[in-house]
Amino acid sequence: MKAEERLERYAELAVRVGANVQQGQEVFVIPEIEHADLARALVRQAYLAGASYVHVFYRDEHVRKAMIELGPDSALAYTPAWEKELTEAMSDNALLATTGNADPELLADLDGDRVGRAIPLERAEIRQRQHLEQSVNWCAVGAPNAGWATQVFGEPDVERLWEKVAFCMRLDEADPVSAWREHLDRLRVRGDALTGLRPDALRYRGPDTDLTVGLLPSARWGSAGFRTSGGIDYVANMPTEEIFTTPDCRRAEGKIRSSLPLVLDGQMIRGLQLTLEEGRIVGVDAEQGADLIRGQLGTVENADRLGELALVTSESRVGQSETLFFDTLFDENATCHIAYGAGLPYAFDGEPDEGCNDAKLHVDFMVGGPELEVDALLADGSAVPLIRDENWQLQ
Amino acid sequence: MKAEERLERYAELAVRVGANVQQGQEVFVIPEIEHADLARALVRQAYLAGASYVHVFYRDEHVRKAMIELGPDSALAYTPAWEKELTEAMSDNALLATTGNADPELLADLDGDRVGRAIPLERAEIRQRQHLEQSVNWCAVGAPNAGWATQVFGEPDVERLWEKVAFCMRLDEADPVSAWREHLDRLRVRGDALTGLRPDALRYRGPDTDLTVGLLPSARWGSAGFRTSGGIDYVANMPTEEIFTTPDCRRAEGKIRSSLPLVLDGQMIRGLQLTLEEGRIVGVDAEQGADLIRGQLGTVENADRLGELALVTSESRVGQSETLFFDTLFDENATCHIAYGAGLPYAFDGEPDEGCNDAKLHVDFMVGGPELEVDALLADGSAVPLIRDENWQLQ
Repeated sequence: MKAEERLERYAELAVRVGANVQQGQEVFVIPEIEHADLARALVRQAYLAGASYVHVFYRDEHVRKAMIELGPDSALAYTPAWEKELTEAMSDNALLATTGNADPELLADLDGDRVGRAIPLERAEIRQRQHLEQSVNWCAVGAPNAGWATQVFGEPDVERLWEKVAFCMRLDEADPVSAWREHLDRLRVRGDALTGLRPDALRYRGPDTDLTVGLLPSARWGSAGFRTSGGIDYVANMPTEEIFTTPDCRRAEGKIRSSLPLVLDGQMIRGLQLTLEEGRIVGVDAEQGADLIRGQLGTVENADRLGELALVTSESRVGQSETLFFDTLFDENATCHIAYGAGLPYAFDGEPDEGCNDAKLHVDFMVGGPELEVDALLADGSAVPLIRDENWQLQ
Repeated sequence: MKAEERLERYAELAVRVGANVQQGQEVFVIPEIEHADLARALVRQAYLAGASYVHVFYRDEHVRKAMIELGPDSALAYTPAWEKELTEAMSDNALLATTGNADPELLADLDGDRVGRAIPLERAEIRQRQHLEQSVNWCAVGAPNAGWATQVFGEPDVERLWEKVAFCMRLDEADPVSAWREHLDRLRVRGDALTGLRPDALRYRGPDTDLTVGLLPSARWGSAGFRTSGGIDYVANMPTEEIFTTPDCRRAEGKIRSSLPLVLDGQMIRGLQLTLEEGRIVGVDAEQGADLIRGQLGTVENADRLGELALVTSESRVGQSETLFFDTLFDENATCHIAYGAGLPYAFDGEPDEGCNDAKLHVDFMVGGPELEVDALLADGSAVPLIRDENWQLQ
């Protein structure tokens, strides 16, 4: 497949399956400027899908850097009125976001405190409300670029990164749109089956790992396939390979070891091991980067409780790609993962249970691998195998 | 001078002399995405000049192309509410725009009618009002990029284009900011002297040229150095080498030959010759591209009347660079030029005279050269030499 055709098919997937743009909707594309090739293809495909207008607002991390480095304090958390209007206008419309940081260490030399405060708060509040209202059909996809390829391969081999990304996105299938619909159906059936089992807890066993995490009766196991309040089905990120839930943040006992490196705030965390008691992380060890994690847990309230459990099996295209992407969108879909920090409100049909953790941070780390065994523990004390040798066991 | 230092000095000139950004102003930077290097430098320099916040809105011609090619009719002239808010917010603030088209023929294959209708009308109206109210201190500067360099040199030699642009911008001066202030003073003195002479008409004589154009008593000769209604001096484009006025569109007799090629709507016009009677262009000839000009004059009302006379002498850095930039910002500052189409309202202190041409188009073409003689004709019938051998004669 030629590069141009691949780009259009990729964008078509993001538009038709991901955001599922509807005839007459306005579409918002929010790329980094290094993502221009993909952004332009998304615009074309959005119009072909019937968009009435496509808004493109390019972000530029170098502009943000200059603001943090040289701007006044008042600029840091400022959201201009026009940007609020732009964000509000996304309601009942479609959004396509792109990931793939061209230079993840760009802000490394800046004053950490100012970097931390540089969040346009009013924009974030509007987006949070739109999430709760489920008013936007949106999708995030990766945008291969030279900087990202250099992180992954040590050289700016963008074509090689495109091949990996295309594989993860099932672009090699004869009909990728149908392949994705089948894939999402499979995940939905799997999630429904696990929800129907009504497990009281999940138990993880493996190397340096024996962890039991309590579950909430009102939390469902779902996929990234969502539905807006207006009834539009969409997939919030592609690729997606997980079924996930929000656990009971008050119940977690044992220890667990991370199986893949994790990129966090421009640092690499390797060999992370966590010990949990009564729902809280009480011990943090790592071959590299433990201080950063300890710092997070020490400063952000409730960061030391769990917010997500996600199950991924060997059918994962990301896992099969045997690539560490240094990008959470991809890496968290390689294998089973757990997140400390905020629970996910959209695991609940109505209001979240009080066991859903409330924290201003959500960090996924990968725990899956051939030796990890995952069981569902039922209320009667029996155990039902869910994952063995990275294969799904529940039928 | 290293490339990085040159970039910062260039941006500093645009910010300090061009837009003349004031402490506490918000600054709007509106670049093409191919202008990112300069845009980022403009952001840095704007914060260093005391900007309270710098808004950056990248434009992308490929996005516009997709809209024209694939979008519905209703999208063509649409201005989103957030973009109106963004544009309105420029009032009493500063604007930095960039030129240097990376691919001037990008839209060449599209339906010309749709291209022509693809103007966000409400945004244009807001900008027009801001021009009349003089509420924005703004500056347009060139942003060298590979596509532009290829047009100029036949190869993407961006460094060579940077050297030419830096020369035109007087970046080789020890103190470019002072050099520009002196240069602008010189132009202002020259304009004031010519205004004070109160000429009734200008006469151009040279090869295939003998043209007399009537002037308006209320129209001043000015430079691109303007002042906002709030009292901020700014230079609307850099480089600038001209003094200009709006002529009486009802009085022009004779013929004139263009001395440099002209790039217009993706086409090249060479050897243009115009014949004028009673203020109207009644004959158009050219070695190349005459049909395009005839088409414009035939379809746009009052395009066949003159809207601007501008005088440029051999002191012009653009002229000295001996480069055809294929960009009006530069090329019109190489030598004397005339525009057919709309008169310039800011040549008048109050309301424009009724002799100021009203047309939805303004096209500059270059007429200067060593053989062109320009005289001011006074009311008593006497002639005062203004330009001989590209040198200024009036003291």
